[in-house]
Order: sequence, then C-alpha cells, then structure tokens
Amino acid sequence: MNSAQHTDVVVVGAGLAGLTAARELVAAGKSVAVLEARERVGGRLLNHHLGDGRVTEIGGQFVGPTQDRVLALAKEVGVDTYQAAVPGETVYVNEGKAKRFSGHIPPDLFALPDMGLALARIGQAAAKISPHAPWEAAKARELDGMTYETWLRKAEITGDAVDMINLFLNSAYGGEARDASALFSLWYVSTFGDETHPGTMDRGTGTTGGAQDSRFVGGSQLVAQRMAVELDGRVHLSAPVRRISQDSTGVTVVSDAGDWRADRVVVAVPPVVASRIVWDPLLPAQQDQLLQRLPFGTLMKCVAVYDKPFWREDGLSGMGLLRGGSPIREMFDNTPPDGGPGVLMGFLGGKEWRKWAHRPAAERRGAVLRCFAQVVGDRAFDTVDYVEQDWTAERWTLGGPTSVAAPGVLADHGQWMGRPHGRVHWAGAEFSPYWNGYMDGAVRSGQHTAAELLHQI
Amino acid sequence: MNSAQHTDVVVVGAGLAGLTAARELVAAGKSVAVLEARERVGGRLLNHHLGDGRVTEIGGQFVGPTQDRVLALAKEVGVDTYQAAVPGETVYVNEGKAKRFSGHIPPDLFALPDMGLALARIGQAAAKISPHAPWEAAKARELDGMTYETWLRKAEITGDAVDMINLFLNSAYGGEARDASALFSLWYVSTFGDETHPGTMDRGTGTTGGAQDSRFVGGSQLVAQRMAVELDGRVHLSAPVRRISQDSTGVTVVSDAGDWRADRVVVAVPPVVASRIVWDPLLPAQQDQLLQRLPFGTLMKCVAVYDKPFWREDGLSGMGLLRGGSPIREMFDNTPPDGGPGVLMGFLGGKEWRKWAHRPAAERRGAVLRCFAQVVGDRAFDTVDYVEQDWTAERWTLGGPTSVAAPGVLADHGQWMGRPHGRVHWAGAEFSPYWNGYMDGAVRSGQHTAAELLHQI
Repeated sequence: MNSAQHTDVVVVGAGLAGLTAARELVAAGKSVAVLEARERVGGRLLNHHLGDGRVTEIGGQFVGPTQDRVLALAKEVGVDTYQAAVPGETVYVNEGKAKRFSGHIPPDLFALPDMGLALARIGQAAAKISPHAPWEAAKARELDGMTYETWLRKAEITGDAVDMINLFLNSAYGGEARDASALFSLWYVSTFGDETHPGTMDRGTGTTGGAQDSRFVGGSQLVAQRMAVELDGRVHLSAPVRRISQDSTGVTVVSDAGDWRADRVVVAVPPVVASRIVWDPLLPAQQDQLLQRLPFGTLMKCVAVYDKPFWREDGLSGMGLLRGGSPIREMFDNTPPDGGPGVLMGFLGGKEWRKWAHRPAAERRGAVLRCFAQVVGDRAFDTVDYVEQDWTAERWTLGGPTSVAAPGVLADHGQWMGRPHGRVHWAGAEFSPYWNGYMDGAVRSGQHTAAELLHQI
Repeated sequence: MNSAQHTDVVVVGAGLAGLTAARELVAAGKSVAVLEARERVGGRLLNHHLGDGRVTEIGGQFVGPTQDRVLALAKEVGVDTYQAAVPGETVYVNEGKAKRFSGHIPPDLFALPDMGLALARIGQAAAKISPHAPWEAAKARELDGMTYETWLRKAEITGDAVDMINLFLNSAYGGEARDASALFSLWYVSTFGDETHPGTMDRGTGTTGGAQDSRFVGGSQLVAQRMAVELDGRVHLSAPVRRISQDSTGVTVVSDAGDWRADRVVVAVPPVVASRIVWDPLLPAQQDQLLQRLPFGTLMKCVAVYDKPFWREDGLSGMGLLRGGSPIREMFDNTPPDGGPGVLMGFLGGKEWRKWAHRPAAERRGAVLRCFAQVVGDRAFDTVDYVEQDWTAERWTLGGPTSVAAPGVLADHGQWMGRPHGRVHWAGAEFSPYWNGYMDGAVRSGQHTAAELLHQI
C-alpha cells in the first residue's frame, strides 16, 4: 500500500469503453490511470498490418447509422470513415450451389417468404421490449423461459428462415439461436438503434444503411490508439489487474505493473474477464451470478490476402452468404480503401467454430478457402497471405464478439448489468442499451459511466 | 521456483472429490499435497454446531441407494448413516392451504394426473440418454436447443406439474426448468443411478429409497474431516491457488501458502472457481468456453433451531412441499439423530433466492418462518436459533448446489467436461456420469481421476 500510486480514478481496460471513460474524466479535470493488460490498446479492435502502411481489421470493424457516439468520437480524434460495401453482386451459396444476386434479398424462393414473415414477427416482438429494461417487458418471464430457436419455431418460422437467422447470429453472437434466450435476442434487436430510432433487425443485419455500412480509414483500432495518444502517458500497458479491494476510504487496484490507490474504479473489461479479477470484498452475489452467466460467443476471423481484389473485375462484391453446413457463413471484401492488396474476410463462428477451431491449421485453412472459392472462384486459393484471429484464445478477451445470455439470465439477473457496486463502476459494450456488443455501445457506456461517476465525486 | 516444494501430485481443493483423489494417490504410493483455500475441509459440505457435540448440516447432507461410492467411503472412515425420514405426515401447501398426507403422493387432485404423465415421459426420454455421453443421444441437438421448461410444455405437461418439477429443481439446481436445457435435465435424471441401475426421477426426488434416504451420523462434513486426518499433514489449509503453470517438465502451482512443483495436478474445485485460476498457458479454448457456461445455481439453506422437534408430537414428519410463490419450496426435519434439539431446514433456491437473498435479514427470516409455520404450526416462530448459509456468498464456492448447463452447452462443449489437459486432471461432482452434482458423484470422480492419473505416471 505504501508504494501505491494515487489517482482519482483507475480505469481497468483500454478498449473503446475504458478509453472513452478516461477521456471524459480527464476532460472534467480528474486524474486518471488506465491499466491495460495487453501491450496494446483497443481490446476487441485489432488492426492487421498488410505492409506499406495499409491495414485490415481482425477484430470489430463495421459502423453504421444511429451509431452516432462512435462516429462522433472518431471524428473528434480525426479518423475518417468510408463505405464498406463494394459495387458488384453478392453470392448466395446453398447446398453447394452458388447464385449471384444484387441488392439485399438472397435469391431463394423457398427461404424468402419465411424470412419476410420472420422479420415481421421479430420486429413486432422486439418493439415491445425496452432497450433499457428488457426484464420489465410484459412477457419477460415467458420469453426468458425459452431459447430464441424455440421462439422462432413457435412463431411458425421454418428451418430455412431459422438457418438464415443463424447465419447472422453466427457472426453477431459467435453462436446461434439455440444459445440465447428469446428475451435476450429480441432485446438485442431493440438495441439496434438509438433514442429516436427504435431498433430494427434490418438495421442490424444491413450493409449499406445498416450496421455494416461503413469502416474506419486506417482501421478501427486507430480510434483507440488516437485516444490513447491524447491521454498522454495515462495509459499503462502490460498492467493486468489481478485484484480490486475497496474499503471506506478508497479502492486499491493491484496490477502486474504496480498498485494504484484511487477514489473510484471503472471496470471496462468484458464480463467474463471481470469475473476473474479477485474481488475484495466479493461482488454482490447477484452481480457475480450475472457474470457467471454472460459467456462469450466463439468467433474466429479468417483473412485471405491477394495481390489485388480480383473478384471486383468479375462484377462481384466479395460478399457471400453461405447456408448451413458451411464453415464460413458470412464473408466480406476487406480490402483497404485505396484498393489493394485484395482481402477477403470470413467469420468462423458459433457451432462452426466449435467444429473447426481445433482441427489442424492446414485443414481449416483449406476448408475456409474452399468457402471463399465458392463465392469468388478458384483464384481464392492463390493467397499471398492467410491470417486467423481466434478471439477465444485471447487471454484478455476469452471469446467474441460479445457476451450472450441464455434463458433465465436477463429476467432474473439483468438489472445487475452495469450496476455500480460501492466505488466500482462498469463500462463496456455489454452494458449499453443501444448497440449492445458493438463499438457504439462501448463508447456510449464509457460516456454514461464517466457521467455517473462525475455526478458522485 | 527455487523455494517451491516438490511433490508428485498437487490436488487443488479439499472437498470430497479432491480428498478422495488424494487418498487413492497416497494409497498408490504417490507423494501428494492438497491445497485448500479455506480454513476447513469439505467444500460444499459444512456442519453447523448446535452445542453438546451435536451438529446439523448447512451444506450437502443426503445420501441414498446406488450412491455406493460415498457410502463405502463413509464406512471406511467410520462414519455411520441413519434414515433421514422421520415418522409422521408430510404437509403440502398450495395457495396458502396446508394439507397433511402420508406416503409420497401429495394430495392434489389437479396436479396428480399430470405429475404421473410427466414422470412417465421424463423417464422415457431420460432412458435414451447415456450418462457417459449425453451429446451422443440421437436427439441431442434438438434437446439442447430448448429449455427444460419448453420440453415439459411440449410434452403436454401442464403448469401444475411444471411447478412441482420446479419445486424439486429449486433445491436440486438452485434454479428452475427455465435455467437448464432439456438435454442437461434429462441427462441429469439419467445420472440418478449407477452402472446397473438406470437413473430414474423417483430415485432423485425420493426420500426413503431415494436420494434423500439417509444422512451421516456426525454430519456429512465428518467424512471429509476423517479423510483429511488420514492424509496426515498433506492437507494445507488457507492455501488458495492463484495460478497453475505447466511446462514440459512439470507443473507449478502458486498459492497464498507458497508454491508447489509437481508432476501432475488434480483440480477439484467447482467449474466456476477453476475458471478463475490464472492458467498458464490458457486452458484449451473449448474447455474455457465450457467453464464459462457452467454457472452455479443460487441456493441458501435456512435453518431454525428449537428446544425440541415439537412437530413430531403432532404426528408430523417436519417435511413440507410448498407450491409456487412460496420462498421456501421444500423443507425437512434436520434434527440430529438422537432427537434434539429440534431443527427445521428449508431451501431458498432459484428464483426465490433471486427475490429474497438480498432483502433485509429480518424480513427474510420472517418470510422463512411463516413458511415453516404453514407446515408445523405457529410454534415455528419460537426459535432458539436461526441460521442461514448462502452458498452464493462463499468465495470458494460461488453458488450452489451444483452447476447447471443452459441450452447449447452439453451438445457442443460437454465432451470437454473433465478432459485432462496436459498435466492437469479434473475432479468434482460436476464431472461424474452418476449422481452428478451429488456427494457420490464427487467421490466417484475423485476415484476415476486418481485411476486415470496413476495410469499415466
């Protein structure tokens, strides 16, 4: 304790949420130390360098309309955006057959009517759930008593449409409809918006005009890096926090890079990572129980690099939607904005991760490239480089892209999400009522927590 | 590392599983150090002293037929058993009305036919699931895509019967049918037996002839204490393990009471507690994901002590079954075997825990005693002592009575349960194919793991 450094607030975690909170606190005149376990900032945002100063992302990357908080923040730190979608046709792969199409609607006469019905029913149900307090919905307990898969089938949504929804959840949850409660999933849709735009499934799944509308020039991690530079020496890397002890006069934060003594602490690491800090005293039992019930999804990003984005010459956007049974369910053209080198990125998520993540690397690479080839042709095998980022193997994340609640969690434990505990405040994408699990949610929660804390000290 | 103590095997956790493993390893000539975080042994077994050498239990307490492993062990260490059931009528409370009855069948004309149907259908479905590999069941993915509540309703089991099943799950899971997958719950029933007696719901829920048949003279914790004495200095208390690092030549276990260097380690703490150890290298991602998905139930034991078991004079057994809406759903006469003082014990579990655990103590005590009074009359308020044991507040357990898997867990991650990882072996009630979550499962897993390990070193 004698050698502890003193500060008003310790922020644990230098992802978007923690850095945003720190930035607001510093602007309000507080002394702040940000303790980051890794040797880098950005959390679930991670640039991959392609050479010549070009990057592609192997973590979170997309932003879109109503994600005003992260868009405004990026503007403030001088990071531009660009349209993510590339002109050209998308490819829909079903039972090994690839079909090209334009626009948003996959060319599948069997799945389409059901998808229309599914989206309408999901929209109606999500509209009845408050993004701020899903546990107060009239049917909260009923909806939290079943999986989303059960709910979809009860709503007479058929196998084809359920598989299309799983295609989205594969990357959105790193899971599938089976893994989450109906209440969580309908609430999740309600978070795809802001105070004036109610959440919709279209906005969550959409490319242009939706959550996959835009990307950041220089890569999403640059937003975090710029904030860290602004924070000017206040961010301490390689400083994993092992213990948080609070008493009547303050809080002691024990890290591998020394101890800090502060008036308050903002914990801005993912729920499962937070649960593994030694808490002294323990968190309130309900909050610990909540953290026991917010497992991460399982997600790997698979990136193939080519001399150039050859598919564009063929009139293809590089985007692919692949039906059940395919290791990659969704893929995108991830080429840097100036057009080279060519980059294809696919999500290996949910049950496909569980099937593939621990097979030999060469076997998995082959399976991934075969998916890419179904979408853009056999030149997909002529890679310059191939990179995988398995978020489950990251000690300081432990999964991806976000935490997903099974039945029984939100209704009984949800109100403990982000609830301050003495001198401990919470921030993170998982604690936002809008764009929960997204970059915008992280920024929003960081701002909210800083305001909450400044109100109290 | 220089100051590390050397041993063949470190066992982490001195509950029944860890102590059993240690005992077998010592018998085979291995050097063993058992590191226990608490100042006591027994894990989820805990005696409460009533004075004059008498005890009652505020942790696990019941044993019954087919639980041969724990019964044999108790015999070996000289702990006797006695019949738990007390002569007299049981009380069934529904909508505030108490009815006395004899035998196993509650006097409820509305619930009964459905309960019969429910038990038959549960039995048929559970018989198709292997206790050893539930993920291989023909309908594994379908059953793991829904909650147990959904499955019960699909099987046309009505609200009354679902509530009766929840009454059992309230203490068995510290939860309800909504919290667990159908696959987990039907598998759980299949574990209520042994190699020659397939699991049945009756054996799980039953008093005489079932899992609540008998108790240990001197309290269940005595079995653990006797083993610890036998282990003669090999059990180190107040030694919480913080880090487990393995390399090609051995494993280093870092505890608050010093470091140990061993050839192998047996981790015999609950899954959520194990997940919070610092693992170096990380556990395989699938195993970490499994540990992220095995939250504890929420359970508190509420114990009222009286001069004598006055209800016996009224022809009551002290046992009560209370329908939905009641804080206590199930209660028992927990009087020591020689007949005094009188002890009533009730489970405050699942959603009732979530509702009551953090209300003011006096308010909760009042609610609990009102439940007791519905069963044994107003003398229930004349307590000599009142004790609560909230297992969620125990740092080295973090919930109770066992870990419960939501949908999507067993089918995709189940095969990682208890799978050795390099020099790390697993033991614990949660890793047993029979009486999973029970004392017998803990002993069985400890024996299994010791044998597995001895086969390798």
